[in-house]
Amino acid sequence: MNFLIIGGDAAGMSAASRAKRNQPDLTVTVLEQTEDVSYSACGMPYNIADTKRDMNDLVVREARVFREKQGIQVLTGHTAQTLHLKRKTVSGKKRDGTGFELPYDKILIATGARPIQPDIPGHDLPGVLYLKNLEQGRNIKAFLQTHPVKKAVILGMGYIALEMCEAFRERDIQVSMIKPRETFLPWMARDLAEMVKEELTSRGVTLYSGSRVTEIRGIETGGLQVVYSEGSLDADLILVATGVVPNSEIAAGAGLELGPGKSIAVDRSLRTSAPDIYAAGDCSDAYHVVTGEKTWIPLALRANRAGWAVADAICGEDVTLEGVAGTAVFKVFDLEVARTGLGMEEAKQAGFDPEEEIIHSRSRAHAHPGSETIRVQMVGDKTTGRLLGVQMVGKEGVAHRINAPAVALSSGMTVARFSQCDLAYAPPFGPVWDPVLTAANQWMKKQQQPLDTVP
Amino acid sequence: MNFLIIGGDAAGMSAASRAKRNQPDLTVTVLEQTEDVSYSACGMPYNIADTKRDMNDLVVREARVFREKQGIQVLTGHTAQTLHLKRKTVSGKKRDGTGFELPYDKILIATGARPIQPDIPGHDLPGVLYLKNLEQGRNIKAFLQTHPVKKAVILGMGYIALEMCEAFRERDIQVSMIKPRETFLPWMARDLAEMVKEELTSRGVTLYSGSRVTEIRGIETGGLQVVYSEGSLDADLILVATGVVPNSEIAAGAGLELGPGKSIAVDRSLRTSAPDIYAAGDCSDAYHVVTGEKTWIPLALRANRAGWAVADAICGEDVTLEGVAGTAVFKVFDLEVARTGLGMEEAKQAGFDPEEEIIHSRSRAHAHPGSETIRVQMVGDKTTGRLLGVQMVGKEGVAHRINAPAVALSSGMTVARFSQCDLAYAPPFGPVWDPVLTAANQWMKKQQQPLDTVP
Repeated sequence: MNFLIIGGDAAGMSAASRAKRNQPDLTVTVLEQTEDVSYSACGMPYNIADTKRDMNDLVVREARVFREKQGIQVLTGHTAQTLHLKRKTVSGKKRDGTGFELPYDKILIATGARPIQPDIPGHDLPGVLYLKNLEQGRNIKAFLQTHPVKKAVILGMGYIALEMCEAFRERDIQVSMIKPRETFLPWMARDLAEMVKEELTSRGVTLYSGSRVTEIRGIETGGLQVVYSEGSLDADLILVATGVVPNSEIAAGAGLELGPGKSIAVDRSLRTSAPDIYAAGDCSDAYHVVTGEKTWIPLALRANRAGWAVADAICGEDVTLEGVAGTAVFKVFDLEVARTGLGMEEAKQAGFDPEEEIIHSRSRAHAHPGSETIRVQMVGDKTTGRLLGVQMVGKEGVAHRINAPAVALSSGMTVARFSQCDLAYAPPFGPVWDPVLTAANQWMKKQQQPLDTVP
Repeated sequence: MNFLIIGGDAAGMSAASRAKRNQPDLTVTVLEQTEDVSYSACGMPYNIADTKRDMNDLVVREARVFREKQGIQVLTGHTAQTLHLKRKTVSGKKRDGTGFELPYDKILIATGARPIQPDIPGHDLPGVLYLKNLEQGRNIKAFLQTHPVKKAVILGMGYIALEMCEAFRERDIQVSMIKPRETFLPWMARDLAEMVKEELTSRGVTLYSGSRVTEIRGIETGGLQVVYSEGSLDADLILVATGVVPNSEIAAGAGLELGPGKSIAVDRSLRTSAPDIYAAGDCSDAYHVVTGEKTWIPLALRANRAGWAVADAICGEDVTLEGVAGTAVFKVFDLEVARTGLGMEEAKQAGFDPEEEIIHSRSRAHAHPGSETIRVQMVGDKTTGRLLGVQMVGKEGVAHRINAPAVALSSGMTVARFSQCDLAYAPPFGPVWDPVLTAANQWMKKQQQPLDTVP
């Protein structure tokens, strides 16, 4: 059987490896448009921050190893363009401009996502850079090595923008961030977003919110200029990090059903709407564990997990994936910022009757030295008492703390049920009542005014 | 209504405060045999480690505050001795030797636990110290300030023993630890226990396992000597930390039903076998979330939670507590050691058909600097696939990581179900597959030999 995979990063290579392990006589072919497969894309900002690190240390396994040790046909420099459903082939173009057409019995579309390219003059000038694949990461690092970059402007203020902001500051580059929407981290509770904002400004980062960029232009002195609604910003480098879109064109072109944000629609077994065609990773959608509805949240763990699931499915296993909770964490200088499930707005839009509780707690026990503030937002449904989401910000103890509520969301717990979970306690690691439990207790108190009338 | 509480630490004072908040017209009286109420007992080793900290900074709220601000009658220096069920009173002795007898409508026994006193000559010599309540903590700290302590011997190698070992080493005191049983941390997977042992010996701690202490004696030079089966150890201070027993005598004396380890038996609403009598905290038992059976695991969070629950119950609320999972974490020098649920032996004894999987993972992503080893043991039931327990050791990222499986235990998840939970990922905080997920994946792989035959 020919198992053909389009895309050689997290989902694609996970599927390739596992399929070959499951069934060694399988013919597994991977089409990858760049020269890189299987690398830690999320690690790029941290690598770029460090002048001493080689970009290639992010490569988990080289194409050569997949070919020689695992017997997987890895065809790099191959851009898949068209899916021919009837004759079961994929055609496209090689790096040298020649075409190819390859047959499949089962196919996995794992084409990932790409940065949104702003529709403004100058978006393709030298020094205007993007970060999604390793080639782009190398471009940024090479640009920093060959140009005296003193000022960077980042378009966008999402995960990648924030991580790259820290990377630039590590290299002593002035950073301005700009975006059209007024609200900073709009999905976040205001109190928590404010902590992140303060962290950024305390590190000398300038934020321009509510400013629409209209043009990027070169200036005489050799640098660039970002022109926005109220003025302009000089820059030696411009990073465009205004979000990503799924690479779903090949699926759309073949008439496959699309889901939220034009991601490729898949069922719980990762099947697209066409027979023998699967999709996984950042290009495809998923069910949300809280809403039960389709969502598009491109994250690395899901990509790996879905890749494995497809491998098992094409090898004849009966595979069903649970949904995603959108659990994510990122680092903004000294802050850890984490979320799982729904925020207030998302919960309302999903038809819940949400109530939030925001608490301030500590990262260590009463009187234990070195304690830091942890702020937690908990969102629950007033009608059913169900836990809907948690957000958290703090200087320590946030990253892994989000996983307890993430598991609770997976099992559909109420806030009350979650509040009774037996979590760990020791003075160096938290208060007796873990901050997430305190948030749950306070949330319930809010619902039970009749009993707790005295504050 | 008279709500009488015996014991003024975690469970007792939580109950007192909450009952008074719930129902301000309640008469709430607390009998505490020491002079201290409401302090962070678990913080004592860390406080003792630090010569600059005052022991009193562990007091969360002083008796005075409970009396004056909250209207709770706190009677310190009152040792409750006898429960008179028929006339609904408690009698006992005050610090000055005079007696007292107080009436109750509802009573909470929150007498905690006490260190086991070894039945050997010399166990009461000056310099032989115990650590459970704040008085004992002060004694240790005072002893260290007034005596030139260069060598300490700790009897026992449990949580408190290990934490105190670190505290002594912080103060540059040589430490030997001794216990009769050969196996170090017997509840732990050997691989993981070995890491803890190595950490101890790398810090210059000497361990005497399989050595029975037969006598403690004073020596001419003024110090002490621990005599054991094969020799003797000189010591300036001896800490007895060979475990704790519940202070359940007052309950036993009144004919109340006892549970595991002679703890006071309570139902899910914290009621003892006698009407109007509740028990909470380290003196009482609980249901285990995994086995559904009674267990006795004295831990701080449970004590606080049970205290609150009793307060709500006596105020007329219909309260039912979920069980405990025995989730615990402790610090041993640079190591974080955590557990939740059942180990292999416990699982067998509880009638499961357990299988374990031990994996080595990393605390940060591929190629991310500063990564440390994390070792995880996962125990699941072969027959049902149910997750039974997790243990974890590592230099970072262990303490809060244990809480995700703890929540999974609370909801009775299978290993397969847990393996699909959407946990957070970012390179500074872990691999894409969180170590607990890798453990789950590997555990399942072990069960599914038919599919994954090639390694």
